[in-house]
Amino acid sequence: MEPLDKIASDQKIVESKPLPVLEYVLELVSKAKQASRRLASLPTATKDHALFAMAEALEAKSDELFAANEQDLKAFGTTAAKKAMADRLRLTEKRIAEMAAGIREVAKLPDPVGMMSAMWTRPNGMKVGRVRVPIGVIGIIYESRPNVTADSAALCLKSGNVCVLRGGSEAIQSNTMIAAVLAEASEKSGVPPGAITFVDRADREVVPVLLKQDRFIDLIIPRGGESLMKLIAEHSTIPVVKHDAGVCHIYVDADADSAMAEAICVNAKAQRPSTCNAMETLLVHQSVARVLLPKLARSFSTANVEIRGCPKTCQLISEAKPASEQDYGREFLDLILAVKIVKNMDEAMEHIAQYGSRHTEAIVTSDYGRAMRFLKEVDAGAVLVNASTRLNDGYQFGLGAEIGISTSRIHARGPMGLDELTCSKFIVLGSGQLRE
Amino acid sequence: MEPLDKIASDQKIVESKPLPVLEYVLELVSKAKQASRRLASLPTATKDHALFAMAEALEAKSDELFAANEQDLKAFGTTAAKKAMADRLRLTEKRIAEMAAGIREVAKLPDPVGMMSAMWTRPNGMKVGRVRVPIGVIGIIYESRPNVTADSAALCLKSGNVCVLRGGSEAIQSNTMIAAVLAEASEKSGVPPGAITFVDRADREVVPVLLKQDRFIDLIIPRGGESLMKLIAEHSTIPVVKHDAGVCHIYVDADADSAMAEAICVNAKAQRPSTCNAMETLLVHQSVARVLLPKLARSFSTANVEIRGCPKTCQLISEAKPASEQDYGREFLDLILAVKIVKNMDEAMEHIAQYGSRHTEAIVTSDYGRAMRFLKEVDAGAVLVNASTRLNDGYQFGLGAEIGISTSRIHARGPMGLDELTCSKFIVLGSGQLRE
Repeated sequence: MEPLDKIASDQKIVESKPLPVLEYVLELVSKAKQASRRLASLPTATKDHALFAMAEALEAKSDELFAANEQDLKAFGTTAAKKAMADRLRLTEKRIAEMAAGIREVAKLPDPVGMMSAMWTRPNGMKVGRVRVPIGVIGIIYESRPNVTADSAALCLKSGNVCVLRGGSEAIQSNTMIAAVLAEASEKSGVPPGAITFVDRADREVVPVLLKQDRFIDLIIPRGGESLMKLIAEHSTIPVVKHDAGVCHIYVDADADSAMAEAICVNAKAQRPSTCNAMETLLVHQSVARVLLPKLARSFSTANVEIRGCPKTCQLISEAKPASEQDYGREFLDLILAVKIVKNMDEAMEHIAQYGSRHTEAIVTSDYGRAMRFLKEVDAGAVLVNASTRLNDGYQFGLGAEIGISTSRIHARGPMGLDELTCSKFIVLGSGQLRE
Repeated sequence: MEPLDKIASDQKIVESKPLPVLEYVLELVSKAKQASRRLASLPTATKDHALFAMAEALEAKSDELFAANEQDLKAFGTTAAKKAMADRLRLTEKRIAEMAAGIREVAKLPDPVGMMSAMWTRPNGMKVGRVRVPIGVIGIIYESRPNVTADSAALCLKSGNVCVLRGGSEAIQSNTMIAAVLAEASEKSGVPPGAITFVDRADREVVPVLLKQDRFIDLIIPRGGESLMKLIAEHSTIPVVKHDAGVCHIYVDADADSAMAEAICVNAKAQRPSTCNAMETLLVHQSVARVLLPKLARSFSTANVEIRGCPKTCQLISEAKPASEQDYGREFLDLILAVKIVKNMDEAMEHIAQYGSRHTEAIVTSDYGRAMRFLKEVDAGAVLVNASTRLNDGYQFGLGAEIGISTSRIHARGPMGLDELTCSKFIVLGSGQLRE
């Protein structure tokens, strides 16, 4: 790659005389496509070496990163209303160290490319095997937090995929600098230019154009809210694996262990409410509601959780607000919880089927039969018995780093790690076999 | 399900006073969606029993099938130009027996639903497993041959998926009758109504409307030509796994066994030229061309294969026609073969990367190193050494019946069988685990 100052001066030229959006996008994606063939057969050692160099470069260039981040923060503004968002946007020494550590983690994971899940011999003597290969070029469209840039670049590189990264406009300077630092370090280690491609123009028109480049991009991974998902569903001619809303439920069954139910519910709601696997609605069997809910209400109150309950819940919990119909099936991403008392597990499962987003669903029970039935009949990326919904996560499941939690049904469902960033090809070792 | 005569009389009402397309489609797909939850947890024994009943019903009702088929054939016409197509469309005793046999084969395959690929224990004691579950509702859009109706319905049922079938307009009567017979037989065996849904209106506007029903349909599988693929890329808001063109190459290397090369090439081209895994272009190393091509030309001539060659090929084969640029990368689906002499394997792999459709690619060689390099560097659903491209097929690979050969990279690539008609869900068996 060209040195950063050269890139910067090129960008000034671009700024003074911008290319039409289509030309700009085509230039990026054709370079990305070109890189993908070389990247696909890059040895694991080269990729790992590049990843360590990328981690080091992020730490070495923290001053440049802070300067770029400062521009974003200034442009974003610091009104009280924006404080939470600005906090997410801010780069700190600690966050840079975490990004670097994340990249080093990925370097240490096994390379999925070339792994053969099985090889078998057919009656005619030919051997058939299934090998993991990179998907090719992956477009990742995401919002706000700059660490996604580093995480995504690392996971794509390790799995032999070119990434085309499009971050949120409010982090454009930070993301551009992170991507430039990573690309430069990777190229010095032998990774082909274009392998880490960043869409450094914030124009709104770029995304719809990007979504039509099915000749160059093999997969789109969007991470964001409803409006992003809608935009993508409308415009993409490229296959998509979505990472969107988690409307997760916990159903506390008739004979649940009361202390376990309480601990799981508080953890699932309050440990980190802004995540997609946090609980949004609690369903409680009518026979335990009277005992459980007042106790739970005290714990939730201590954790500053606002309860919006069905009429019966409001009778049992004086501080609960009445839930509106919109509160069921809503992703609060906040310290707010909808609560409903149900007649039995069937009603709970009906509620989940109607309002859930098929992300993460859990039951707390000590009944074996109902545990098994819940596992079988509830449809979601992850279904848990007696465990917090917050555990639906690549690291927690022991799968290593993840690019997100897929809410698509096809290709990848649930935590999407290195394996899911590959596809398969069949190989055949023959000795002259023909079709009869 | 209602009896067939009731349906037929309903259809007459529909014919005299057709529903608006959107209403018609919504009625079909909402019923399909409703069926999918029940179907997903139907026991294997019930599904298998239904499959055997479906096979039997097809054979028992062959007279109705012939009558419906006769209507299609009459409408289609029998001019000489249309003869090949009419032959594909025609139902015979033998074809009905083959359809029934195919359904019975599917009944005998293992049920993928509920299979757990692995279960592991995490340090906190929770057990995590990955289970195969049905995708849900699968829309299959296909052309001409009526046997696809039976094959698709059987594979979807066995894998717990509702199918919404849309066949070609020229086979509408045959397909409607096949689907009605299958649906009736399946429902008598306990399969929920709607599980086998057939789009019995031939209006062109139906497909674009169907492709927008992402609330009801989880996956679209198109099987057909370029115009169908374009329509789907433009309109679908539903994930798609494509089954389209195979532009397959064989590269005959410098030190290939000459007899093996000849046998493989003739088989790959002529054994059944209308299939997607037939060879379309032959690439020959320059050092063996002089010896191999004249011999090959005689075999191809016997098999009525027309050769369109590069200038050097035309020098070696007198009856070869000169190939135009369009002949490379073209899916002839006929007894026509493009031939090119190349300098070396690198040029062959460049040609394949430029013109191939990443479906099936083969090398004939006796050099170990080049065989391994070809397997690694050529990107396709299946890459073969010393075997005919025609062997890229679910049955030949030992995977059982297939719904087609996927040319998508994500979810399924290559032969798409019962396993690929499912997705996964994670299940967690906990004992009170929380996120730290």
